[in-house]
Amino acid sequence: MVPKKILLTEDEMPRQWYNILADMPTPMQPPLHPGTHQPVGPDDLAPIFPMPLIEQEVSQQRFIDIPEPVLEKYLIWRPSPLVRAYALEEFLQTPAKIYFKNEGISPAGSHKPNTAVPSAYYNKISGTKRIATETGAGQWGSALAFAGALFGLEIKVYMVRISYDQKPYRRLMMNTWGATCIPSPSPDTKAGRTILEQDPNSPGSLGIAISEAIEDAVTTPNSKYSLGSVLNHVLLHQTIIGQEAQKQLQKIGEYPDIVIGCAGGGSNFAGLALPFVRDKIAGKKIEVIAVEPASCPTMTKGPFVYDFGDTVQMTPLLPMYSLGHTFMPAPIHAGGLRYHGMAPIVCQLILDKLIEPRAVHQLETFAAGVTWARTEGHIPAPETNHALAVVISEAKKCKEEGKAKTILVNWSGHGLVDMMAYNAYFEGKLTDFELPDEEIQKSLKALANFPKPKL
Amino acid sequence: MVPKKILLTEDEMPRQWYNILADMPTPMQPPLHPGTHQPVGPDDLAPIFPMPLIEQEVSQQRFIDIPEPVLEKYLIWRPSPLVRAYALEEFLQTPAKIYFKNEGISPAGSHKPNTAVPSAYYNKISGTKRIATETGAGQWGSALAFAGALFGLEIKVYMVRISYDQKPYRRLMMNTWGATCIPSPSPDTKAGRTILEQDPNSPGSLGIAISEAIEDAVTTPNSKYSLGSVLNHVLLHQTIIGQEAQKQLQKIGEYPDIVIGCAGGGSNFAGLALPFVRDKIAGKKIEVIAVEPASCPTMTKGPFVYDFGDTVQMTPLLPMYSLGHTFMPAPIHAGGLRYHGMAPIVCQLILDKLIEPRAVHQLETFAAGVTWARTEGHIPAPETNHALAVVISEAKKCKEEGKAKTILVNWSGHGLVDMMAYNAYFEGKLTDFELPDEEIQKSLKALANFPKPKL
Repeated sequence: MVPKKILLTEDEMPRQWYNILADMPTPMQPPLHPGTHQPVGPDDLAPIFPMPLIEQEVSQQRFIDIPEPVLEKYLIWRPSPLVRAYALEEFLQTPAKIYFKNEGISPAGSHKPNTAVPSAYYNKISGTKRIATETGAGQWGSALAFAGALFGLEIKVYMVRISYDQKPYRRLMMNTWGATCIPSPSPDTKAGRTILEQDPNSPGSLGIAISEAIEDAVTTPNSKYSLGSVLNHVLLHQTIIGQEAQKQLQKIGEYPDIVIGCAGGGSNFAGLALPFVRDKIAGKKIEVIAVEPASCPTMTKGPFVYDFGDTVQMTPLLPMYSLGHTFMPAPIHAGGLRYHGMAPIVCQLILDKLIEPRAVHQLETFAAGVTWARTEGHIPAPETNHALAVVISEAKKCKEEGKAKTILVNWSGHGLVDMMAYNAYFEGKLTDFELPDEEIQKSLKALANFPKPKL
Repeated sequence: MVPKKILLTEDEMPRQWYNILADMPTPMQPPLHPGTHQPVGPDDLAPIFPMPLIEQEVSQQRFIDIPEPVLEKYLIWRPSPLVRAYALEEFLQTPAKIYFKNEGISPAGSHKPNTAVPSAYYNKISGTKRIATETGAGQWGSALAFAGALFGLEIKVYMVRISYDQKPYRRLMMNTWGATCIPSPSPDTKAGRTILEQDPNSPGSLGIAISEAIEDAVTTPNSKYSLGSVLNHVLLHQTIIGQEAQKQLQKIGEYPDIVIGCAGGGSNFAGLALPFVRDKIAGKKIEVIAVEPASCPTMTKGPFVYDFGDTVQMTPLLPMYSLGHTFMPAPIHAGGLRYHGMAPIVCQLILDKLIEPRAVHQLETFAAGVTWARTEGHIPAPETNHALAVVISEAKKCKEEGKAKTILVNWSGHGLVDMMAYNAYFEGKLTDFELPDEEIQKSLKALANFPKPKL
């Protein structure tokens, strides 16, 4: 029988993360202190992150050892399978070979635990007793709750109120893993109380929730904060995905022509792509495509600027493509892709023409997800559907051009906890929405006096 | 590193199902026609099942080849991993070795696709265009919807109305796979209309839904019916679980002292257990434990009788432990375990002292599920929690007795679509409920004039 899944044994699982900072043709520009406009140092970050993560954030070392206790917990679900999408290929009648890396098999159902587990571990060994974080739709909050349970850390999640009310499943997952999850804005922080005084029925926002979580972390003894995307150390942890995929493809004598992932903050995309970008820097001819929603077109329509990572201006200024930290994305159903910025590493690699950004419309993404479910079986997360839409369009192009390209995609998570988004699609309630340029220009005005990064 | 997961390659996946009818010390007693009390023949079943499944229902052949197209679809998620629950062992401080077979990795999230896929396949090659079925909480309906998508069959699922309204996620999974799912009682069948005339707001029952699905199948051209548990051919298909587990254990030189599964209709339990029961018949000394809820104590409190498989008296009379086909189980949160009867194969093996039934209380099962999630990571289905409760109590017994037994459990499904049940548990809304003997006696009265099976 032709093999469908290419597996690695536990012994074959990579023992190091890959740090692309060692190989980038253009060095990364530093995050800046918003007051002084000077590069941010480790001391500035120490109140919110434990030192091992701060060190990883700036490390230039090409490979960084994964600690044994992290490897041990990774084995709960890793190595993840690399799977050939034969049934989809047949359905599309394409000569393309489509492989997907199934990150949906983690207990939280997405790639997020790849960084939640080391984040919890480094906090644990640094003496942290509890971690505060924010979550939108709940994927990150549930991943950190899972990781907190494994290492005996108290986890408090500030969940955007509208998601808290509308999406009880992810909150209940967090509770099952022992985490506290409360709706944000909350009376537990000064930031939350201020908002609630103005509007007791505030639906909340990711910006407010970040603000609450950071305030909680810096004002509560033995507490830190944890972020699930955007930052260098988060992308670093996710590179186990791409490194596994390389080993798996090598086993069957394959190498991708096209590498695809969806990108909200950039972590699942980068996790798969960065080890292949390393090869591209070394001369390999491949396309690497980061897919975002047309309704939140950070990479395809935002300028490369210094901007805050959050809405409430608590983070350093990061060099990235941005729609402006005050940008309010349309309420599309892929919560994980509604972010105004993008991981600085991904942005620099786009500037250096190593990564190609692409925007897709919502209806096409759900159509792709349904096609996927009816051929390959597994129901994808709405975020993942964005990557699958590009897989399908590239596979169709292969058919038209008669080219048997090898396509590799990060199947970043399953959609079983997101079925209400499919419901909205089936009921015809979803629409395509392209962001008007005027709106982008409006929110970018807030950046007028910020320093400018080199282009 | 100590291996956590024992994997099989795709080439190592079993190519045959194991049929215990070839090895049972006491031959199975036949199903009887309710009118004539004569054994039911293939012709009686032909209107509702395709002939290959009817043949499997009565086959005495020890091993039955799995068709290539079924093997191919099994590869979407199989072979499933056998996993050592190190973290749970450590938490319990038990000398026991605990292994679980993770059937939650299928696209539908449970073991059900193991039989849904062959059921769809045999229907397809027999000329069936559409299949009607019923579903309670939705695990079986979603599994058949998934299988129908793979083989291009139209699937219509009659879902018990109260679940349809309260549990939209599984219904939406069915829609995503292209199936039609309607609340039962429905206006689409005579049976449904009769009920609706009496009570337009009927919450429905599994009995009514079965009745609607069978009526649909026998009155619609090119249509058949499909059942997801109880019958011999369903248990046969599930034996791939136990056969894989045997190969996996052999790889590491292990053999279980105790085999555990939860049992509603008996299919996941039997799927894991029957290949080990074969060894037990041949002389191996092992305990094989089927776990049921104390609130629906079919095996532990029901008599061995001839009874209908359904509430509305449409099926043949089956020789089994039963609480009576009119029995209405308490609304416990493990929908898959609320059945008045039990697979006749499992019942005969209990009579022959090869399987030990055990009943557990609801609160203990959720406590076990939460302990599991916080140690091993994956959140179990409420049904699975019943098996895990016995795993934990056996592991504690090992600690008390200082015995390092090897425990094997079927982790039959994940609980990500059942989080509302966990919610009820966290909010203190669940209670333990032991069925009074009077209630059982009451519903058993309906069987007074039925033929009696041999004991």
